Amino acid sequence: MDLTPLPETAFIDPRGGNHLQASRLAHEVMNMVLEHLSTAEQRPPLPDLMTRLDFGDLPEEPRSEMEWLDELTKLLEASMNARTPRFIAHMNSLSNMASMLADLAAAAVDNNMLSLEMAPAFSRLERHLMQKMAVLFGLGDSAGGVLVGGGSLANLQALAVARNVKLNTLENGVSSLPNQPIIFASEVAHTSLQKAAMLLGLGTSAVWQVAANENSQMDINDLQKQIALAKDHEKIPFCVIATAGTTVTGNIDPLPDIHEIAQQNELWLHVDAAYGGALIFSKNQKHRLRGMGYADSITFNPHKWLYVARNCSMALFRDGSVLKQAFRIPVPYMSVSSDFTNIGEISVHGTNHADVLKLWLSLLYIGRTGYAHLVNECYRLADYFLQHIRKRPDLELASEPEMNLICFRAAPKSMLAQKWDEWNAEIQHHLLSQHQIFLALIPYRGAKWLRAVILNPFTEKDLIDRIFSAIDGFQKGRGAHVSE
Amino acid sequence: MDLTPLPETAFIDPRGGNHLQASRLAHEVMNMVLEHLSTAEQRPPLPDLMTRLDFGDLPEEPRSEMEWLDELTKLLEASMNARTPRFIAHMNSLSNMASMLADLAAAAVDNNMLSLEMAPAFSRLERHLMQKMAVLFGLGDSAGGVLVGGGSLANLQALAVARNVKLNTLENGVSSLPNQPIIFASEVAHTSLQKAAMLLGLGTSAVWQVAANENSQMDINDLQKQIALAKDHEKIPFCVIATAGTTVTGNIDPLPDIHEIAQQNELWLHVDAAYGGALIFSKNQKHRLRGMGYADSITFNPHKWLYVARNCSMALFRDGSVLKQAFRIPVPYMSVSSDFTNIGEISVHGTNHADVLKLWLSLLYIGRTGYAHLVNECYRLADYFLQHIRKRPDLELASEPEMNLICFRAAPKSMLAQKWDEWNAEIQHHLLSQHQIFLALIPYRGAKWLRAVILNPFTEKDLIDRIFSAIDGFQKGRGAHVSE
Repeated sequence: MDLTPLPETAFIDPRGGNHLQASRLAHEVMNMVLEHLSTAEQRPPLPDLMTRLDFGDLPEEPRSEMEWLDELTKLLEASMNARTPRFIAHMNSLSNMASMLADLAAAAVDNNMLSLEMAPAFSRLERHLMQKMAVLFGLGDSAGGVLVGGGSLANLQALAVARNVKLNTLENGVSSLPNQPIIFASEVAHTSLQKAAMLLGLGTSAVWQVAANENSQMDINDLQKQIALAKDHEKIPFCVIATAGTTVTGNIDPLPDIHEIAQQNELWLHVDAAYGGALIFSKNQKHRLRGMGYADSITFNPHKWLYVARNCSMALFRDGSVLKQAFRIPVPYMSVSSDFTNIGEISVHGTNHADVLKLWLSLLYIGRTGYAHLVNECYRLADYFLQHIRKRPDLELASEPEMNLICFRAAPKSMLAQKWDEWNAEIQHHLLSQHQIFLALIPYRGAKWLRAVILNPFTEKDLIDRIFSAIDGFQKGRGAHVSE
Repeated sequence: MDLTPLPETAFIDPRGGNHLQASRLAHEVMNMVLEHLSTAEQRPPLPDLMTRLDFGDLPEEPRSEMEWLDELTKLLEASMNARTPRFIAHMNSLSNMASMLADLAAAAVDNNMLSLEMAPAFSRLERHLMQKMAVLFGLGDSAGGVLVGGGSLANLQALAVARNVKLNTLENGVSSLPNQPIIFASEVAHTSLQKAAMLLGLGTSAVWQVAANENSQMDINDLQKQIALAKDHEKIPFCVIATAGTTVTGNIDPLPDIHEIAQQNELWLHVDAAYGGALIFSKNQKHRLRGMGYADSITFNPHKWLYVARNCSMALFRDGSVLKQAFRIPVPYMSVSSDFTNIGEISVHGTNHADVLKLWLSLLYIGRTGYAHLVNECYRLADYFLQHIRKRPDLELASEPEMNLICFRAAPKSMLAQKWDEWNAEIQHHLLSQHQIFLALIPYRGAKWLRAVILNPFTEKDLIDRIFSAIDGFQKGRGAHVSE
């Protein structure tokens, strides 16, 4: 084709015709990106939202390389900066080096996980790695799974299979059922379950909320009560979801007990371990996931605690063949192989990016021992954070932490309890505006709580000390002011 | 944290502590990737599938940097090589430079499209760009949309909204409906529609196939017949899907006629323009999309004909507020903004990669004029390809092409028609094994066809000449042999 009206480096010439020019630009962008990351601590965790970017119309003519680089710089500067340790608010890790470079390589060869033909190496790698991960979680040798774009989609994938297996809905759907199918999950489970139920044609009301105890773990007695109630109402219970690492407090549901009830009631057991699954790498901590091997399906997101650039989420199945039996939609225009089912036929995605490359290269680069070390270090610092809280009678925990998520609030006895929400909002604002430290402020059980997620590998005790001296300082200063 | 057991460059130090070491590795990988792309024409379009990679167990200890780089090299070499112009089989474009570098930057800052807080610049950019794209397609000023991970998910997103709007299924699902809801689509529409119907609890049988004419376009009379039939059976018709660029032959359904029938029957009109949407950029070709502005929703994949690295797919809605009214699942642990709905609340994804960065940087780098030029060049060469076919009485077209997809076969009059399938399979094999040219072999309407997709910017007339002289040579040589 005639490419003269295009920028010289619009496409890399497969015959090497613009190798030098392409190299120059690519290394310039790489330098820019590395410089940006290596100076992350100098920037606040959240950009100034008052600076609105003006994007304008769809560009008619190509911009000059200089303008283009300027725009990229501006966008990066206006982005969330989760790389500074002072960003301590969310389950948002810092993408490890191997995963970042893997995404560059994946975008370069741009293979398509739709079919074996369009992603021969990555398809085989994904199947292999999902089996290995499933074995690690105790699902056994017949397990399998797929990588999808985020935990919400992993839950959707798992629940779609659960629905099709238990209620035979692949061909004729849900409208032929006599009543509404019901999913049970704790009241503090993630809202992606409501989204999955909505998408799956069950409706958001199909997710029955089971009470959680004071530590945000599913109340087993209430689960039994709810199942009985659903049966009384002639609803169709088919699935229970246990959470290993709740979003707000990082607690873990009692997996063995839930498994037993699931067995008794012939329910599919899905474990949403999007966050907590990482504990499987730590000899010291993996006991917390006891019972997870009983699951029919598991969600786990390496883009959280395994520090893999997003998206990287897996849906694993104890019986890997269910994907073929109870989900598969053939893609007839693709070659088929007798020993390999095209991933695009058994995934919520058709076309998909090769997320497996960054997972595999991260595992090779960091190793299981490296991940074990990182998980253990997070626990060590979370424990240090906790000690600070326990020393202060005015601070209280939302639940007893089981992971590196700590949800707490100031509850000064000298203040009316109804003022605590505003007080904690002020603390959050103070930390962000005066100390550029970002803790989340989360509505939870009718009140507002501060949450810290101790995840950044560059977090030090010193930062934690600073957080608490800032809270102390604020409470003293403002408290004095208030009591005047 | 103590990071001593980890490789020195496992994470880029936000204080610059390992800037030099990280730089060295990053530029080395960049060189490797660029070298790989700049020599793509020297490698066959498909790797030797006999070379099985042995991935082994989950690595216990981190691999050395050298071993790690070796593994990456091996994986790239074992990947589909869509960058050589001799890969001419699928709608698989070559990711443009800007989009590749954008994905590096996106993985580096790793923002999360779940919420405005976690992706402030990219969230605003995505909303802005979806509105601009919707206006370009003629959907008007109230339109909106989201970017999702592939065309299958874009169709799922659109049909979920369609179902919720038309049948009010967000809260109570499909089981409360008196009968099965029905979607109409041409018999040659993409199978992701069956997948969406399955996921949405309608069942694969909810997609009623409308006959296509000899040019693979929806037969309007049959559509009317099917709708009447569904009503007779007390099914619940709620949606019709038109395709702008069918997967096998690249044909376009009669959009204005389908719109009229949709109006008469109060059906949601979805246009799957995953591939064909790119025509909107070309003044010469966009007339082919006439009527697309009538759509209630549109799927369009910039990762196809806009040469953006995958995933980059959009679901656009004429009335952007439907996402909030008929799809939204709140994420209560995220900050809310009065003027901005978190994208993770109105998308099939929760967490998601910032695909918008590569789309925007591609548009800035190539411009609308650049894209118009690329589309026009594809048509010019597709026309040249067609001339070769029309000159040869033994070759026949599967349909009259409307785009840069050409589906044809050898149908030698001297041979029994029942042998044609095998004959075309042999031609495909010959092209691949002897000339390293990869055309697809696709089952279509009960027979096997060769398909070429003229998409690679480095395709030249010379390659097309070579394809036909290779086919001629094969037919002559083998034909002589056969008739002996």
